Amino acid sequence: MLKRYLLAACTAFMLLGTAAAQSTEPVDLDMVSRIRQEAFHHSQVMQTLGELTEGIGPRLTNSPAMDKANAWARGKFEGWGLANVHDEAFEDFGRGWEFSQASVEMLAPRALPLFALPKAWTPGTDGPVEGEAIAVAFKTKADLEKYAGKLRGRIVFLDELRAYKPGTEADFQRHDEASLEDLQEFAVPADRRDDRARRIKEYRERQDLAQAVRRFLVEQGALAAISISDRDNGIVRATGGGSRKAGEAVGVPELGMIAEHYNQVMRALEEGQSVRLRLQADSRFTTAEDRAGYNTLAEIPGSGPRANEVVMLGAHMDSWHTATGAADNGAGVAVMMEAMRILKAVGARPRRTIRVALWSGEEQGLVGSGDYVAQHLAAYPQPSDPAQKDLPSFLRENRGALQRKPAYDRFSAYFNLDNGSGRIRGIYAQENLAAMPIFEAWLKPFADVGATVVVSRNTGSTDHISFDRVGLPGFQFVQDRLDYSTNVHHTNLDTYDHVSPEDMKQAAAIVASVVYHAAMREQKLPRKALPAQ
Amino acid sequence: MLKRYLLAACTAFMLLGTAAAQSTEPVDLDMVSRIRQEAFHHSQVMQTLGELTEGIGPRLTNSPAMDKANAWARGKFEGWGLANVHDEAFEDFGRGWEFSQASVEMLAPRALPLFALPKAWTPGTDGPVEGEAIAVAFKTKADLEKYAGKLRGRIVFLDELRAYKPGTEADFQRHDEASLEDLQEFAVPADRRDDRARRIKEYRERQDLAQAVRRFLVEQGALAAISISDRDNGIVRATGGGSRKAGEAVGVPELGMIAEHYNQVMRALEEGQSVRLRLQADSRFTTAEDRAGYNTLAEIPGSGPRANEVVMLGAHMDSWHTATGAADNGAGVAVMMEAMRILKAVGARPRRTIRVALWSGEEQGLVGSGDYVAQHLAAYPQPSDPAQKDLPSFLRENRGALQRKPAYDRFSAYFNLDNGSGRIRGIYAQENLAAMPIFEAWLKPFADVGATVVVSRNTGSTDHISFDRVGLPGFQFVQDRLDYSTNVHHTNLDTYDHVSPEDMKQAAAIVASVVYHAAMREQKLPRKALPAQ
Repeated sequence: MLKRYLLAACTAFMLLGTAAAQSTEPVDLDMVSRIRQEAFHHSQVMQTLGELTEGIGPRLTNSPAMDKANAWARGKFEGWGLANVHDEAFEDFGRGWEFSQASVEMLAPRALPLFALPKAWTPGTDGPVEGEAIAVAFKTKADLEKYAGKLRGRIVFLDELRAYKPGTEADFQRHDEASLEDLQEFAVPADRRDDRARRIKEYRERQDLAQAVRRFLVEQGALAAISISDRDNGIVRATGGGSRKAGEAVGVPELGMIAEHYNQVMRALEEGQSVRLRLQADSRFTTAEDRAGYNTLAEIPGSGPRANEVVMLGAHMDSWHTATGAADNGAGVAVMMEAMRILKAVGARPRRTIRVALWSGEEQGLVGSGDYVAQHLAAYPQPSDPAQKDLPSFLRENRGALQRKPAYDRFSAYFNLDNGSGRIRGIYAQENLAAMPIFEAWLKPFADVGATVVVSRNTGSTDHISFDRVGLPGFQFVQDRLDYSTNVHHTNLDTYDHVSPEDMKQAAAIVASVVYHAAMREQKLPRKALPAQ
Repeated sequence: MLKRYLLAACTAFMLLGTAAAQSTEPVDLDMVSRIRQEAFHHSQVMQTLGELTEGIGPRLTNSPAMDKANAWARGKFEGWGLANVHDEAFEDFGRGWEFSQASVEMLAPRALPLFALPKAWTPGTDGPVEGEAIAVAFKTKADLEKYAGKLRGRIVFLDELRAYKPGTEADFQRHDEASLEDLQEFAVPADRRDDRARRIKEYRERQDLAQAVRRFLVEQGALAAISISDRDNGIVRATGGGSRKAGEAVGVPELGMIAEHYNQVMRALEEGQSVRLRLQADSRFTTAEDRAGYNTLAEIPGSGPRANEVVMLGAHMDSWHTATGAADNGAGVAVMMEAMRILKAVGARPRRTIRVALWSGEEQGLVGSGDYVAQHLAAYPQPSDPAQKDLPSFLRENRGALQRKPAYDRFSAYFNLDNGSGRIRGIYAQENLAAMPIFEAWLKPFADVGATVVVSRNTGSTDHISFDRVGLPGFQFVQDRLDYSTNVHHTNLDTYDHVSPEDMKQAAAIVASVVYHAAMREQKLPRKALPAQ
């Protein structure tokens, strides 16, 4: 195995060396050195993360805590002397929601505390409620009528029992040379034209069933609903339920329960036992009407002829509500904020304007960044077909010509961080092959802290896609996974303790250096061809 | 690596082959076959485990649920036609205790539900209480006075913050040939005479400090105390606190909190923030006075001249209280019960009497099995020195001659299962070298289900030690670890879902066959020399 690692390492270094030599991309090693000194030896990144995650707490989009986070971020940016610090609204996102406490307790056949947490945008219980558990199987709308008249005063268990899946790999993983090498492979995409139609159909059926279930549970007088966490080992993964949109059915109070307890209730029900529960969810909508959400932005202004060109960096500040959103994505926010602080601290005077954005609404479909791009950079025409209009942006077919704003041509690139708190091991070039030798040159001074790969492949599911979708260079870094997907992603364990300070310092240095070089470079970053329309 | 596995496998098989050939130990393959058929194809072991763990729940020694478990086990044994089904008391164990629900909630500086569960034998709160958190450092009794006058109405955080330790190995592990081979090595013991004196001193200091802290917290009017779970990833490990003995100080309500939440409170306190908590623990002592604990026993009587000789098998039925005691040790209980059921089902007519014991008080120091051995088999004289008398049995020096009961000479061997729910991979011979070829012969028909090793080394920490200590053959099987030490041991995750049905069936077959062969063999099992006195 050792031999393979060595070979892979050699190949990686050879590639870097060759590409950099070919590109003659300039790197300001004096500035890199100053950035590293500030990032590694005078870091504030964990202080920033602590204030955001433990001072403010979870930051569900449009919650009061998210408003606090916007105000706090503006304060930090102003304190560091950034310019043009402000929030920007994206309209009609939905209602605010928050929760403070929840408890579920089995009263019969025997006393047992059960661990569950509320789903966002579901109502609270207004004090404790008590009722018998009932298991249902709502696979299609036709299933609902089987339960008519059976749910009044009951607590409804929505999912099937799920067997424990032993954890046969370590929770915590870092890339090794072999896994980094694997990332170099690009999978030629399968034809997905038919796939889109199928996905739209499935999406509509799912939405339709979910709404019918919410209405049915309310009509039938169910007290609450419980679903099973999709993690084992006592981890709660409970994201959104109900509806965030004013006027839509929010259903009954719904909680996600750990598998170990959910299964126990289900086995008792299968044996025909009467399972009595007491349940309380101190959850509440904080606005009756839909309201705007807010991104927070700030700049280090450029100077000279390229001052009206822009390099952006960003991360989403909104989080799910069951923990403090530390890895997803307090970490990304703290690193991007720290990168701006470092650039100010080292006295960077960029040619292009460097603009940082802390997005909201990411968890609900890149809403904040998508709206920003549409307002400032470019957008496809809104579909006139109401059925298309209802679809989330990732399912819509973009029909018509892209409508570009003046800033579109002055935009260089956007850099994002949102794959947990693991250190940067490289960057996804998002099929922008012309950008690869540039990135290779920029990352070379960080090979000694583990950032070694530039890969052609795409990565998705976060805010750089809002830029990529309209043909603008938008990138997400390759990061060490740590325990992101195993323990913390969207779970009650996404807390400060699971974040590694050394990784955060490393990431802040690299981001600061990359955006600095993007702001200083002779040309804007090259663009790839627009996606087929 | 493959080569090493193959070599190890070959060595293991050669050892087995040679030893078995030398011993000419008879194996009744027809009976083994019948036992396997019943164990693998007509198993009731998971039904038994379900009734015990989910029907009855956690079984803290002397709790009402432990009484239910004793009664349930008697009913199962009687239903299977076992003889001499009865409970045996061990005196003055302590008080009963149970809890039904607990909650902790941060009210300020912001709302946050905190996850914690009560320690056994600590009092409840009699409804919710509210107070400010305070961190203390009680390293010695001298530290207490620093906090005089500062704890009234406060919730006391007893431990230091502990950094997250990434899980770099898989939670779930099975033995491979390499790890089984490692078990073949015997570590020649270091001289521990001085060590005992040090351990006694440390034990006394710990006990003394704990009692002083309990008294101090009550005197000072603290509302409750919180300690940190010694597991990461949201797992609560909260065993005993307070005192089970009537007349001793039980202290204030004490709970164990997940590290992710404990650390968060500690960081807020370190920053000088005022942290206000609401806490409720619905815990209660179920007896005012010390009461007896109970082991449950049953037999398949022998017949013929060896009928008054005994082979025993057992496992402890008591558990900790935060989960349902499935791996520790519902699994051992269900397997031992199933082994007895299988022997009845296949019509076994043993020469020696086969006696099963389901112990209580194991978690508090092998109390039930220790008392049983002292009453029926042998004991060292009770120390006259009151200081020695106060020590738990594992720290006492046995002075004076072992006092043997008549049954001592008629006792063959005791077999125990208590290392989680993992399948049997072999047996610890506990330095009884003469027993090794016998075990090798008995395990050979189970090599195809993974039971391949007989190792000379000792293993401790469970009830076979009560027999071993008085020179009687007492054995614990080598088991696959699964997620015993990582997730479930003494934690809130020790539930039915973490138990593998296939492993349970395998173990029941092997135990049934081993005890059957022990009961049928010409001679009792050989004994090793008595431990030095």
